[in-house]
Amino acid sequence: MKLLTLARDLQRRKGRERQHRFVAEGTRTVEGLLASGLPVTGVLVSASGLEDGRTAALVAQARDRGVQVLEVGDAELMGAADTESPQGILAVAPIPDHRLPTPMPPCARILVLDALQDPGNVGTVIRTAAALGVSATIALPGTVDLWNAKVVRGSMGALFHHPVLAMSWEDCAAQLGLAAFVIMAADTDGVNIADLRPGQVPDRVALVASNEGAGLSAHLASAVTQRVAIAMEPTVESLNVGVATGILLHALREGQYRDVSAVSS
Amino acid sequence: MKLLTLARDLQRRKGRERQHRFVAEGTRTVEGLLASGLPVTGVLVSASGLEDGRTAALVAQARDRGVQVLEVGDAELMGAADTESPQGILAVAPIPDHRLPTPMPPCARILVLDALQDPGNVGTVIRTAAALGVSATIALPGTVDLWNAKVVRGSMGALFHHPVLAMSWEDCAAQLGLAAFVIMAADTDGVNIADLRPGQVPDRVALVASNEGAGLSAHLASAVTQRVAIAMEPTVESLNVGVATGILLHALREGQYRDVSAVSS
Repeated sequence: MKLLTLARDLQRRKGRERQHRFVAEGTRTVEGLLASGLPVTGVLVSASGLEDGRTAALVAQARDRGVQVLEVGDAELMGAADTESPQGILAVAPIPDHRLPTPMPPCARILVLDALQDPGNVGTVIRTAAALGVSATIALPGTVDLWNAKVVRGSMGALFHHPVLAMSWEDCAAQLGLAAFVIMAADTDGVNIADLRPGQVPDRVALVASNEGAGLSAHLASAVTQRVAIAMEPTVESLNVGVATGILLHALREGQYRDVSAVSS
Repeated sequence: MKLLTLARDLQRRKGRERQHRFVAEGTRTVEGLLASGLPVTGVLVSASGLEDGRTAALVAQARDRGVQVLEVGDAELMGAADTESPQGILAVAPIPDHRLPTPMPPCARILVLDALQDPGNVGTVIRTAAALGVSATIALPGTVDLWNAKVVRGSMGALFHHPVLAMSWEDCAAQLGLAAFVIMAADTDGVNIADLRPGQVPDRVALVASNEGAGLSAHLASAVTQRVAIAMEPTVESLNVGVATGILLHALREGQYRDVSAVSS
């Protein structure tokens, strides 16, 4: 299949699943993809894209690596892109075969996305998880496709190295159970995350991030064994899911870290 | 000026400054505006908007309060709206006259936005500040207009009660100086925020949130007296500004709170 046709086909989830490929759009995202060392199928660049020095350098770098580069018209590039401003460049690449770490570190955090639908939020959450040392992110059914171009771009390249896996709740529960993960979720009636003392943060904790409006899926609610809250002013209903997840992951990491250092000192 | 013409005029910052009014778009945002008790100039609703029960209830509520309600065509409503999906309803209201709290609480956090341009990020950051008990948010020049419809909507109603003020850096520095605020900013070379012990978090702290790409403005950099960092994996360059601000504000609040409780116990 020609590169342009392929890119267009990858705009749809079905196309990505069939081709097992995704599209990285925009200068920074394509830079991240090339820097990651992942294989690249090809690069599409438009005439106006090439006018930008950074994009031109990126194209030269791709050619040096033997990656197919196709110059197309501005309208053709826009037609093949899914994000609003692809900045005249996009790359097609095979979806990396991410897996859970083996062996799992003794002290680990995993993030579970429960039906998160907004691609911008999901991208931000994955970027945050990668930055804060989360071992892997698992996307449950109902979550936007992880290889949607808006998620890829929103993750700022984190998807290229941070393990993200889509799986059913049954598979997720089985894997987390085998590795003795405690399943934790945010709940306004939970323990204030700031009050968790060293020793109260489990060595292996899976944090569930759920849809702000809908809350936890029913089958997940019964699996959650620890509920934590972020203290908030009564005038505000909720935090953005990306912000809340960032605060919780940061506090959990510090809780685990303090615990470890307390033991070793 | 007719309500429809007025709403259209308020799409531009100049129009908002001239009219000293703003537009709240979408069901949830208009609900928040009505619930806030702020005065409302008028409500525009489209025929398809009225088909939604929640929107219809909102319109009835507005009429009960004596607010002018104008039914317009779908195309007219879309033409007067700035956000992508105004859900068939928008409201025009005077911009509230937010001020810094007087007296300033002995223990207070203020958020300073340094040239933040993305309206979605600014809305999220204001919502986060309100949720985490920040006393006020100050927007410095270069920051997107706080009353931009996308900021209003992104703040999820927080703008209706959380004090937000746009001012020059000179005015901001003078006011923070008078109230003995310590000016703090995120910096990768700063002290790990998780290592700040009670007593190291100032009683009054102004946290500067800056543009992810550009970093701190030069005149601000010299005013910052405390630099803090969020420890990150080397594979990730930065966090989203909303996420980073949430983590820092949460840690600062807990630092101040722990300090106070340590003194009082």
